[in-house]
Amino acid sequence: LIDADRLWDSLMEMAKIGPGIAGGNNRQTLTDEDSEGRRVFARWCAEAGLSIVADDVGNMFARRPGHDDAALPVYMGSHLDTQPTGGKYDGVLGVLAALEIVRTLNDLGVRTKRPIVIANWTNEEGARFAPAMLGSGVFVGAIDKAVAYSKVDAHGRTFGEELARIGWLGDENSGSRQMHSYFELHIEQGPILEAQQIDIGVVTHCQGLRWIEFTLTGKEAHTGSTPMKMRVNAGLAFARIADAVETVARETQPDTVGGIGQVNFSPNSRNVLPGRVVFTVDIRTANAAKLNEMEEKVLAAAYAICDELGVSLSFEIIGRTEPVTFSNNLAEIVRRCSDRLSYSHKNIISGAGHDACWASHVAPTVMIFCPCKGGVSHNETEEISIDWAAQGANVLLHSVLEVAQV
Amino acid sequence: LIDADRLWDSLMEMAKIGPGIAGGNNRQTLTDEDSEGRRVFARWCAEAGLSIVADDVGNMFARRPGHDDAALPVYMGSHLDTQPTGGKYDGVLGVLAALEIVRTLNDLGVRTKRPIVIANWTNEEGARFAPAMLGSGVFVGAIDKAVAYSKVDAHGRTFGEELARIGWLGDENSGSRQMHSYFELHIEQGPILEAQQIDIGVVTHCQGLRWIEFTLTGKEAHTGSTPMKMRVNAGLAFARIADAVETVARETQPDTVGGIGQVNFSPNSRNVLPGRVVFTVDIRTANAAKLNEMEEKVLAAAYAICDELGVSLSFEIIGRTEPVTFSNNLAEIVRRCSDRLSYSHKNIISGAGHDACWASHVAPTVMIFCPCKGGVSHNETEEISIDWAAQGANVLLHSVLEVAQV
Ligand SMILES: NC(=O)NCCC(=O)O
Ligand SMILES: NC(=O)NCCC(=O)O
Repeated sequence: LIDADRLWDSLMEMAKIGPGIAGGNNRQTLTDEDSEGRRVFARWCAEAGLSIVADDVGNMFARRPGHDDAALPVYMGSHLDTQPTGGKYDGVLGVLAALEIVRTLNDLGVRTKRPIVIANWTNEEGARFAPAMLGSGVFVGAIDKAVAYSKVDAHGRTFGEELARIGWLGDENSGSRQMHSYFELHIEQGPILEAQQIDIGVVTHCQGLRWIEFTLTGKEAHTGSTPMKMRVNAGLAFARIADAVETVARETQPDTVGGIGQVNFSPNSRNVLPGRVVFTVDIRTANAAKLNEMEEKVLAAAYAICDELGVSLSFEIIGRTEPVTFSNNLAEIVRRCSDRLSYSHKNIISGAGHDACWASHVAPTVMIFCPCKGGVSHNETEEISIDWAAQGANVLLHSVLEVAQV
Repeated sequence: LIDADRLWDSLMEMAKIGPGIAGGNNRQTLTDEDSEGRRVFARWCAEAGLSIVADDVGNMFARRPGHDDAALPVYMGSHLDTQPTGGKYDGVLGVLAALEIVRTLNDLGVRTKRPIVIANWTNEEGARFAPAMLGSGVFVGAIDKAVAYSKVDAHGRTFGEELARIGWLGDENSGSRQMHSYFELHIEQGPILEAQQIDIGVVTHCQGLRWIEFTLTGKEAHTGSTPMKMRVNAGLAFARIADAVETVARETQPDTVGGIGQVNFSPNSRNVLPGRVVFTVDIRTANAAKLNEMEEKVLAAAYAICDELGVSLSFEIIGRTEPVTFSNNLAEIVRRCSDRLSYSHKNIISGAGHDACWASHVAPTVMIFCPCKGGVSHNETEEISIDWAAQGANVLLHSVLEVAQV
């Protein structure tokens, strides 16, 4: 079994880097805080005897040799970056639990046949640079590296510049290494496990998603002196599209979601009808056909609304993942290990996207969920118990050992 | 008659200060650009023999002595600040036409009985610091000076600090001077005069307004893993309120307007449902009872929407002016002068707020409108013709001469 207190201490240490304003974290990707978080993690890895390599999109890999060092390694990992008002566990748990597993193996003097590698993927959150899961997306070849480099944040800085600036642009060509299998422990970020008092979620599928970035162009005009009939109100079009997204998500139910987290009005002045409104619609479901159906419905509604208001519309799909089915074999191992540890478990679908979704394109992959309080995530008040963290890490330990072979 | 080319040259010179990105201006109040615009204007006034005083909210007064220097002066003016993406004429025309009138009187060697004073009011636009018409509001005692000083911009800087920083905090206690009468020339900012090919709008009334700043508090949550039923979506509540504002404005027609120019989502991340949404509803009409009715309807709709979604709501009225009736006597003078100059004219209601609205609380006041292309204002493409500008300035010249007496 892993050392629950040591795992918890590491989580709390990491949470000191890039503290938020309400108990959580603001350690967005490729910021100084991210760089410091990576340094601390690298130091811990070095102390645990691991050798560290960064690839050319900043993904970090910390390797523990195996008996058979030519055998493909078993990977486990997640991400250390956070939302601007993110929690202490989203991603971090998966990386630091992996480290805790190495520390435990070191303590026990256990050597596996296969090497074990811990991965910290770059820009999982997608908050600063869209899309999310960018580092793992490049790694598996789903996202073009040059495109990744050119992604721009809200201040006009590019992914490529910022990666170099913070000192984590590695030499290794991203994707040039092979994985035997990939395991990711993560908090559920949803309410199901806690509500049903289940210890372990065996993640069988992951929702696909579309991020549709709309740019609406209306006519900047005075809010006071422009008659209602003369308005070309891009803000009103945004409002109606936002309501339509809600309707589409609800009518395509069950198990479909849709919402808008980001919108920017220009010039964003109280007495100027916005000439330009840019926002991103986020729609998801685990059913590929339904996802396309939702996308079509949202676009049709947006065009109809803009047509009526005379607003012009353009859009770009800035994030796209298809629903994923994880490895049945690995899921079975996770179930067996949970049983062995006497933890209750159930199959679950991931609502959020994860690096594991991309990893599943190149290697057998599975995810392990532990509960989180109230299903709250992407919120500084995100919380888990030390027991939940330890149970997840123990299942990860046993599963990885089974695959890496002692 | 005034010198149309000289007036136009001055307009174009001023437009060089704080240029926009699309042919207009970004010379927001109490910025370095505003300070430079004020310096240039002060230099021009000095060259025209005027003495300049700034009061303690930065309102500038440039005085031309009269025969009877003890007589109350005739004031004319407007504002030199602009929207972030504003035009070259909104406000600027009124100030520089006033200067052109002084220059014309100087050329003609005309001395009036009453002194003439040009006013440049601080923060008319309200884009950086709400409410609009802040300098004139303090001058007439409608807005408390300490409250004005404490107003905060989007970067957390206060009106008071910024006024001192840019060097235009004067000694004079604002409002300590008396006006015989106040004239303001302004572009219409609406479509009526141009459409009806009328040279001069005689502004008889001005709409009242409410700026209602709403703060909606929902629950920050993951857009992917939070089931539709568990959402407390402040962004959705915003969208529905925006639509309700449109409905209220249209159903209370004719001659009522409502819209939203500014909204900020927090944390404004694509995969986080906003926990907080702050936005300002702008509603206006020239009928006091209807204005109150609209305010009540908007608030009722907002409460109902938030109730249904479980979102909590607070609001503050951050801008409030009642509908204004300008001086009949002065309007009659404006009509007479327009007739004398053979300019067509018609009575008109101002859709926008103006410093003249506050001035009317302490002195007989009237406004003169000239047309603007397509009714476009609060937009960098705002445009007028040199003839329109000259006609407005000529009516201003004749009207002021009639009141100031030769
Ligand atoms: N797990 C997680 O929060 N990922 C962020 C990407 C997304 O699902 O929006
Ligand atoms: N005239 C003008 O645009 N004033 C700005 C204040 C307002 O009416 O919103």
